[in-house]
Amino acid sequence: MATDVLDVIRTKRDGGTLSDEQVRFFVEGYTAGTIADEQAAALCMAILLRDMAPDELTAWTAAMIASGERLDLSGVGRPTVDKHSTGGVGDKVSLPLVPLVAACGAAVPQLSGRGLGHTGGTLDKMESIPGWRATLPVPEVVAQLADVGGVICAASESLCPADRKLYALRDVTATVEAVPLIASSIMSKKIAEGTDALVLDVKVGSGAFLPDLGTARRLAETMVGLGEAHGVRTVALVTDMDAPLGRTAGNGLEVDESIEVLRGGGPADLVEVTLALAREMVALAGLSGPGTDPAEALRDGRALAVWEAMVAAQGGDLAAERPVAALQETITAPATGYLRRLDARAVGVAVWRLGAGRSRKEDPVSPTAGAVCLRKPGDRVEAGEPVLVLHADGPDRLPGARAALATAIEVGPEPPEPRPLVVERIG
Amino acid sequence: MATDVLDVIRTKRDGGTLSDEQVRFFVEGYTAGTIADEQAAALCMAILLRDMAPDELTAWTAAMIASGERLDLSGVGRPTVDKHSTGGVGDKVSLPLVPLVAACGAAVPQLSGRGLGHTGGTLDKMESIPGWRATLPVPEVVAQLADVGGVICAASESLCPADRKLYALRDVTATVEAVPLIASSIMSKKIAEGTDALVLDVKVGSGAFLPDLGTARRLAETMVGLGEAHGVRTVALVTDMDAPLGRTAGNGLEVDESIEVLRGGGPADLVEVTLALAREMVALAGLSGPGTDPAEALRDGRALAVWEAMVAAQGGDLAAERPVAALQETITAPATGYLRRLDARAVGVAVWRLGAGRSRKEDPVSPTAGAVCLRKPGDRVEAGEPVLVLHADGPDRLPGARAALATAIEVGPEPPEPRPLVVERIG
Repeated sequence: MATDVLDVIRTKRDGGTLSDEQVRFFVEGYTAGTIADEQAAALCMAILLRDMAPDELTAWTAAMIASGERLDLSGVGRPTVDKHSTGGVGDKVSLPLVPLVAACGAAVPQLSGRGLGHTGGTLDKMESIPGWRATLPVPEVVAQLADVGGVICAASESLCPADRKLYALRDVTATVEAVPLIASSIMSKKIAEGTDALVLDVKVGSGAFLPDLGTARRLAETMVGLGEAHGVRTVALVTDMDAPLGRTAGNGLEVDESIEVLRGGGPADLVEVTLALAREMVALAGLSGPGTDPAEALRDGRALAVWEAMVAAQGGDLAAERPVAALQETITAPATGYLRRLDARAVGVAVWRLGAGRSRKEDPVSPTAGAVCLRKPGDRVEAGEPVLVLHADGPDRLPGARAALATAIEVGPEPPEPRPLVVERIG
Repeated sequence: MATDVLDVIRTKRDGGTLSDEQVRFFVEGYTAGTIADEQAAALCMAILLRDMAPDELTAWTAAMIASGERLDLSGVGRPTVDKHSTGGVGDKVSLPLVPLVAACGAAVPQLSGRGLGHTGGTLDKMESIPGWRATLPVPEVVAQLADVGGVICAASESLCPADRKLYALRDVTATVEAVPLIASSIMSKKIAEGTDALVLDVKVGSGAFLPDLGTARRLAETMVGLGEAHGVRTVALVTDMDAPLGRTAGNGLEVDESIEVLRGGGPADLVEVTLALAREMVALAGLSGPGTDPAEALRDGRALAVWEAMVAAQGGDLAAERPVAALQETITAPATGYLRRLDARAVGVAVWRLGAGRSRKEDPVSPTAGAVCLRKPGDRVEAGEPVLVLHADGPDRLPGARAALATAIEVGPEPPEPRPLVVERIG
């Protein structure tokens, strides 16, 4: 029987499972424009409220991948492994992680996106380095992976056009939050980029896309299942995002902090998450023995050397003086005691209002705006002592940022319960 | 706080109740085009799967009415009362009913639509009368109601533009079946047409839009509630639609049968449903005493006289010879016994394939194609005896019609359990 768009929507609406043929028909038709936006919107809402079965979602993801090109990285001469984070405040981990894992012998093809909303985008951060180019033709990606071992660049338009269209639609129809649609969006792009293995960093907490552990776990399990079903070895770490990661949030500030990590320093939490992810990636890439310990590659300068080569290969000038924000303003502790909470979402919104993030795809972002956390949860603070420093390009940006932080800092007589940074491992 | 389209969709998606402000914002925005089709589609799917609370639906219906004009029929000088049927096979009841209730002293403003799918439209039936005009300016509607007492015509484009847009959207997004959206679509149009009172004929059974009694009852109760909330006295009858109503289905054939009823004859089931609805309408219009008994108005020719005046007022020529179909073909009983089932949906689909109905809004319909039921459920039949006569404009139409009827006729040794025609009264 011929497949019909209304039958597809009705099947999902009534709680059924779409056949492989129905899935292909829908994803192909929507990409080609023979199925209308309103029909895809009705289906996305039905998927959000009815969910998808594992095999159904595997077929859906396969159809998304098949909507575009799938890169062939077999010529890079090293095992390939990548990382994807669901996004958090101060999450600059990709910057030190990609050269670090490359220094351990893998090739890391990090094809990335730009930030939208209160979590920053890796490309936005890298673009605060003068001269750095995000766009790289595929042959250059392959050559750089073979030569340097790591690349961070914009995903080509030819990868997963179905996802680009569906993502834009979900954004305006309140269907972003559907777990199967999140999972297939992330995994279709990562599988299409041609990596052999993948480590997922699923953030959970106030600053994350998913505030509760149950949903984060479900997303992580769904994505690991999709990776395995498509022949990509996949592991997920669920990591904490209740406070900003490291001490900085904001594009240029996060580059500085990433370089600190690559020089063997940097905040303990950022180093811990970076190393945890690096170890998973090295193991998934099948690397072991001398030269494959990430902690050592940070200490001995090999990771920093790969970083410098990666940036230079894409025209970035690390020696050039980078601009700093015109204004700095401190946010102080409201009382004496222990810093019990420094709310990640509030800091993210403040930094976004300072100009570091965008509301619409076409908005520019500031390379200099951001925030530095002088104190982290668990630290002792005195009333009136600076906790945060806001970096602003102009005074008009400050009131909105200050308002976002009104209840972000909580001080109490007892230190908070220590929270594990890596909450769970799935895979 | 300003209302936002994503907040509206999210509220319904998560099972909440929309505020009056959210409802108005959405319906106004969608009608004006500031809210996109894909956003309305996502909301319609969320409404289908999450339902609406009574007050929420009342506000939604009010916003649909407010999207256009509401007719003022206070000048017609008679109590106004209308009927709406959810549609069935052979359901020509409006044709005898409107003049019949007018003959009893009410004014009946039947603003109607065209058929889509396997149930016929009242306007399509009326248009098989040579010269008859469906489109009438509002002042002529009012004048005809005052003079003649009844009018059947096309609803003006200025009534409920929101419904026209939403209905077209629901049709392509598999969201037609949402009970609150069906109820508000029907009731907004009937309330906007300005009637004081309304009787609903909610059909249930194989030939109806709603095959099960539970859903039919829920729709009836919802519509009665909406009518009362908007100051329109409303009663619903749930009536059987498992077999075609009367003996004919098809535009011109149904006009002939309607005239039989108006002459005091016609099939018993059609007369019974027509009289049941007429009595409810007369009572709701507050009419009683001499001249208000519908059975008498059929017997004494007053209903027929109103019919003739109504048709003439809109240019129809009842004396003109009406064309008949080029071909007739009989469908015979497969065995000897009692006719246990004559499936309404199958007959509806057959008649639609013969050319009496349309697939798309812009398709023409045949005035002559249709079917005549020589036998009805409960009748004794001999194997090979004609049960149905198909009327076709050409031989190419017959195979599809015949195929639709392949399992429509069931004969058995025992007569079927008698079914009440009027299943329930709600109001």
